[in-house]
Amino acid sequence: MSSGTVPPPPHADRPRVVVIGGGFGGLTLAKALRRAPVDVTLVDRRNHHVFQPLLYQVATAGLSPADIASPIRWILRRQRNAQVLLAEARGIDVAERRVHLDIGELHYDVLVVASGATHAYFGRDEWKERAPGLKTLDDALAMRRRVLLAFERAERTTDRGAQSRQLTFVVVGGGPTGVELAGALAEIARHALSREFKAIDPGSARIVLCEGGPRLLPTFPEPLGQYAEHALRELGVEVRTGTVVTGIDEDGVTLGEVRIDTETVLWAAGVSASSLGRAMQVPVDRVGRVLVEPDLTVPGHPEVYVIGDLAAFTHQDGRPLPGVAQVAIQQAGVAAANIVRSLRGLPRRPFRYRDPGNMATIGRAHAVADFGRLQVRGWPAWLLWLLIHVIYLTGFRNRLVVLVQWSFAYFTYQRSIRLITGEDLPSRRS
Amino acid sequence: MSSGTVPPPPHADRPRVVVIGGGFGGLTLAKALRRAPVDVTLVDRRNHHVFQPLLYQVATAGLSPADIASPIRWILRRQRNAQVLLAEARGIDVAERRVHLDIGELHYDVLVVASGATHAYFGRDEWKERAPGLKTLDDALAMRRRVLLAFERAERTTDRGAQSRQLTFVVVGGGPTGVELAGALAEIARHALSREFKAIDPGSARIVLCEGGPRLLPTFPEPLGQYAEHALRELGVEVRTGTVVTGIDEDGVTLGEVRIDTETVLWAAGVSASSLGRAMQVPVDRVGRVLVEPDLTVPGHPEVYVIGDLAAFTHQDGRPLPGVAQVAIQQAGVAAANIVRSLRGLPRRPFRYRDPGNMATIGRAHAVADFGRLQVRGWPAWLLWLLIHVIYLTGFRNRLVVLVQWSFAYFTYQRSIRLITGEDLPSRRS
Repeated sequence: MSSGTVPPPPHADRPRVVVIGGGFGGLTLAKALRRAPVDVTLVDRRNHHVFQPLLYQVATAGLSPADIASPIRWILRRQRNAQVLLAEARGIDVAERRVHLDIGELHYDVLVVASGATHAYFGRDEWKERAPGLKTLDDALAMRRRVLLAFERAERTTDRGAQSRQLTFVVVGGGPTGVELAGALAEIARHALSREFKAIDPGSARIVLCEGGPRLLPTFPEPLGQYAEHALRELGVEVRTGTVVTGIDEDGVTLGEVRIDTETVLWAAGVSASSLGRAMQVPVDRVGRVLVEPDLTVPGHPEVYVIGDLAAFTHQDGRPLPGVAQVAIQQAGVAAANIVRSLRGLPRRPFRYRDPGNMATIGRAHAVADFGRLQVRGWPAWLLWLLIHVIYLTGFRNRLVVLVQWSFAYFTYQRSIRLITGEDLPSRRS
Repeated sequence: MSSGTVPPPPHADRPRVVVIGGGFGGLTLAKALRRAPVDVTLVDRRNHHVFQPLLYQVATAGLSPADIASPIRWILRRQRNAQVLLAEARGIDVAERRVHLDIGELHYDVLVVASGATHAYFGRDEWKERAPGLKTLDDALAMRRRVLLAFERAERTTDRGAQSRQLTFVVVGGGPTGVELAGALAEIARHALSREFKAIDPGSARIVLCEGGPRLLPTFPEPLGQYAEHALRELGVEVRTGTVVTGIDEDGVTLGEVRIDTETVLWAAGVSASSLGRAMQVPVDRVGRVLVEPDLTVPGHPEVYVIGDLAAFTHQDGRPLPGVAQVAIQQAGVAAANIVRSLRGLPRRPFRYRDPGNMATIGRAHAVADFGRLQVRGWPAWLLWLLIHVIYLTGFRNRLVVLVQWSFAYFTYQRSIRLITGEDLPSRRS
């Protein structure tokens, strides 16, 4: 298609800033430019921003998709210099300053690539179908469907072997997402479903959490990782650290010498940066992250910024910053300021990350929070987690609805969003 | 598979009542038997009960699926004599008293078939793909996706012809669902999206409602149908009564001599009963509904009941009762009572429908309500509609969340559930 199919920006005489990605980085950057003398075009292949830290709640039937997602258009509706385009960026020509979209070419004066990362299967892409990951709403709905169907399939049979295979869940990856998924699965099995089946006892479900490294939550201080392991074991989760997955097939998982019969494997490990990093033909690291300059631009292209999970920012302690929302949000602020400074002929400023701390929850009343010197665990950390996550959720409605849902879930142990949608019936074996 | 795969009921010595379908009829019947000396097995191919009168709200981004649906297991969790089976009923052998499920055979002593009806395409099944109907949550999500993508596609192009085709919506069928869909579409275009696009004006969208008969809401008194037409025209909907759809293809709809260019056709016409009616080899009417006896049993089989949309009950004025929730709910009560009376050796009682009235909404402040001698219209009818629908929603949580959503939507004109899920990208033409 020709470039004429892409609509022109609202003020064609201003510099055009093209932002690829409506995640935490891209959206924060677009908002930060609301008073700048530029036209902002935000491109995303989805129409909504997702509050990724709560995706596991959708996957485990605690929240509805709309509770943690808002249309990008709606978020930017009052910003006159911003235009939103539902389109897929397929390539970038940094020499010609063009983005190749599925609907044509988009010229830019300044480009911000914030297209993030996804999960990776350590080169075993054939595992993807058997062990879904958790990056998008569709991922979360597919995971919810699998988990709920496993209990239904167990109830549909009288074969004890099939029942115990259906009631076995393996979570791969001991980072925050894996810990949160395993904890939520344990609570579903022990509480939410406990009285609803006749042929099976959901409470007998086996939940296995595998982590290749020596302990859970490797990015947290060791005592918090130990606390998480303890709290998960209290919930009945089988924690296997130092355990690498060597095989996944339709009947189970192989962990070296150990074989676990299961049809439900949830993937919470591995990182692979968006392919747009490599498409720019600039230096990238092992997982495809772009090695950015201290001012977040790409070497040799001061008009191209990379922020968030796609950026490998190594100028603090030599290690790239973690792939968390706070890094993307702070980088967006600095990149926006640098865009404005460049337009005014001022020098760009280097980025410096101020770590506000990390948190992870384990079930309905346990959490860990790491604020450097201060470490919090147990239910005070959980309350803190709740507060911070509700505050950060985009938009008034969502906050209120999420609070209602959570209060209800907390006092009743119920998970009310237990809907199996997507296909009519469990098509595979009963 | 063998019959051994279907789990036995909780009390194998009691008569086994098998209920097919977890809609208003099947669920009400199962609950009505909670103290009866029987085992109830409720079979549904979905794990949730849907509050169908509000499906159009999910299709038009006003409510989330979980707001109008609850897991059938959760609804029956306290009922000790009830078992829920996620399975598809594929056939019924009334001579052998067996239901053929996808996972095996299920013997019954008493059978209640409440598998409902779906939309029909008047023999033009090739229209199905182009003009989705609205019976399930998946239908509603697919419809929501189509409607939202149409606006996005219009924004993605600069071709005026393509834009106006994308901004044209045709709703087929002038019953309550068609009226509700057309009204909600008009409000989305005029209010919810009004400021969010740059290349198009969503308010210029053309919404056409086609009805084959001479007026809208044919099951309502004529003045209420006229009021609905008037209210829709005020919202900017183009109402075409006496208009039969003669063709649907990927570029538009043909209405006899008239051609409308559109890619978004929503189907709210035609009824086809569940195929289980015909599968029983008992007398059915033109659309496949089973001609039931006055006591709701099948001729010659006093142990088989048919209730709800699948039943053609003609013993009041000769015409079958309408396919509404109230008929199914009242029939469930009488069928449950007749099951218990039969077990006690008492004669079964005939069913008699007491019409509590009919309602339909048109947008955010108009409705019509028909209570026989009393007819209400305008916003008093709308308030009444709101009250009744919130009261009837299953479960405390849903009611509260729905009220929060609606209050928010009412005062802000927003539709906050505008998420496009299901596939990554608009795959067809831009």
